[in-house]
Amino acid sequence: MTIRVFVTGGTFDKEYEEIRGRLSFGKTHVPEMLKLGRSRLKARVATLMMKDSLFMTMSDRRKILAACRNARENRLVVTHGTDTMTETASILGRGLSGKTVVLTGAMRPYRFGSSDGLFNLGSALSFAQILPPGVYVAMNGLCFPWDKVRKDRRRGIFTAR
Amino acid sequence: MTIRVFVTGGTFDKEYEEIRGRLSFGKTHVPEMLKLGRSRLKARVATLMMKDSLFMTMSDRRKILAACRNARENRLVVTHGTDTMTETASILGRGLSGKTVVLTGAMRPYRFGSSDGLFNLGSALSFAQILPPGVYVAMNGLCFPWDKVRKDRRRGIFTAR
Amino acid sequence: MTIRVFVTGGTFDKEYEEIRGRLSFGKTHVPEMLKLGRSRLKARVATLMMKDSLFMTMSDRRKILAACRNARENRLVVTHGTDTMTETASILGRGLSGKTVVLTGAMRPYRFGSSDGLFNLGSALSFAQILPPGVYVAMNGLCFPWDKVRKDRRRGIFTAR
Amino acid sequence: MTIRVFVTGGTFDKEYEEIRGRLSFGKTHVPEMLKLGRSRLKARVATLMMKDSLFMTMSDRRKILAACRNARENRLVVTHGTDTMTETASILGRGLSGKTVVLTGAMRPYRFGSSDGLFNLGSALSFAQILPPGVYVAMNGLCFPWDKVRKDRRRGIFTAR
Repeated sequence: MTIRVFVTGGTFDKEYEEIRGRLSFGKTHVPEMLKLGRSRLKARVATLMMKDSLFMTMSDRRKILAACRNARENRLVVTHGTDTMTETASILGRGLSGKTVVLTGAMRPYRFGSSDGLFNLGSALSFAQILPPGVYVAMNGLCFPWDKVRKDRRRGIFTAR
Repeated sequence: MTIRVFVTGGTFDKEYEEIRGRLSFGKTHVPEMLKLGRSRLKARVATLMMKDSLFMTMSDRRKILAACRNARENRLVVTHGTDTMTETASILGRGLSGKTVVLTGAMRPYRFGSSDGLFNLGSALSFAQILPPGVYVAMNGLCFPWDKVRKDRRRGIFTAR
Repeated sequence: MTIRVFVTGGTFDKEYEEIRGRLSFGKTHVPEMLKLGRSRLKARVATLMMKDSLFMTMSDRRKILAACRNARENRLVVTHGTDTMTETASILGRGLSGKTVVLTGAMRPYRFGSSDGLFNLGSALSFAQILPPGVYVAMNGLCFPWDKVRKDRRRGIFTAR
Repeated sequence: MTIRVFVTGGTFDKEYEEIRGRLSFGKTHVPEMLKLGRSRLKARVATLMMKDSLFMTMSDRRKILAACRNARENRLVVTHGTDTMTETASILGRGLSGKTVVLTGAMRPYRFGSSDGLFNLGSALSFAQILPPGVYVAMNGLCFPWDKVRKDRRRGIFTAR
């Protein structure tokens, strides 16, 4: 079984840009994280975009939907900023069938030492291997169907709705 | 749903003892790792022992089996040294029924920066939530039934057998 | 001998604010860094301000100068953003006499894992113990008198001028 | 000015050997640490041996002394296990003249995340640049002449004697 991993940006992949002293995006850290986790899963990683999810447009979400549809694999993980993760999940949930897609992300950048990204990546890849077709959000060790989850922005967590 | 986590030691929890300059065990890092992963799972953590799995005896394994049997929860994760993880899995696999038990561990100590422990913990907790009753080993992003896995000691990985 | 450490902010102390997904300042990490470095120096740490040095005003610099003048100690370290470190050094260099003051900082936040902050802090505290009275900038393992240094902004390093 | 760095092993450079699950020595981390510290010092690093200092022999110490004598540089840093650092310092102190040699080390391996190694390396390189000829031990942010220092083994620190 091969898992397809689509990278779209988000806190997960934020880097610290030294010269300008601010956060920015470079290349994704997902392959490095898979290596760190000693993953032996067959995973094919592709970057669709590198965006803070606050700036994602409907056109971006359609691009993610098309990529999931066109993927040869039936089991996918999408890394995504947490701010609008449920909105993209909703677009995918309404537009896809016959595939298992798990969205995940992080509240702290992987490069910022104490990240939840590695934990979430291990979690999302595991859910993606065994859940039936559908679109899910895997955060905080839990997994929610796309239409049963909301982000509690104030607390920075995902809960059932 | 509450997941029961039994800690038995292993590389996962090895610490560096500064005064003597060697590896040793102190308290488990599992609660700290759950916090780092921003886990919102209801997890009850208990330490059964703190052993390098090379030194685990049949009496130790019977103790783990009894703890799994007596647990009020039906979904459990057991952290364990990798060297004899499959042996304990085999004892649990033959002796338990009606519960989902996932064994996991790490090749590098969590405290040694670049650990696979956080990735594996996220993975094991996810598999434990949805797999049907049975005993499994979750390592390297994969999950194997207890009677279909072996450790490739030379390469330090788990593979199907 | 007691070293006085004045904290003024800078990349050194930048934190990642999870809910808003941006960089910000909280409390200084200097005491934690001293502990991590197992420092046995008598160091008294006080926070004067928490500012990105791009936003430091002349009034801020006068405040730092006054704090150095009024300090009971004759050996001081000032943590400072790198962007205008040489400007503050110049104000201190012209306004102080009879004290050894070493300014230092970092190109990456300490909390961003691979920081140069711990290295620079060890360096600055060492120079502060033995250099004769004067104002210095300690960065990149080197130490420059305040009137012989410039920041090469493009490369993010300090060089002699 | 070029600083010569001689590596002899010690906790500083201990690695975790995954397959055997124990501590061991590989290649030195000093060049990586200098890069992490964004050091711009001209430093020439050479490995003399890779030993736990408990196992250092008189022949090892003579080898270190000869290397310091033969070095073209007059300013040197020697990384060394803490257990017998003062013994090697004593051999160097009695056998060398006209050179500034600073011994340093760590209580935790650099690779074990929260290491004092980076702090000590920044400190030792700074002391080495400005102290007059002599042999010194730089640990815990302090610097002691070779004949005025002892290790408090119980507490894992260096103090004046």
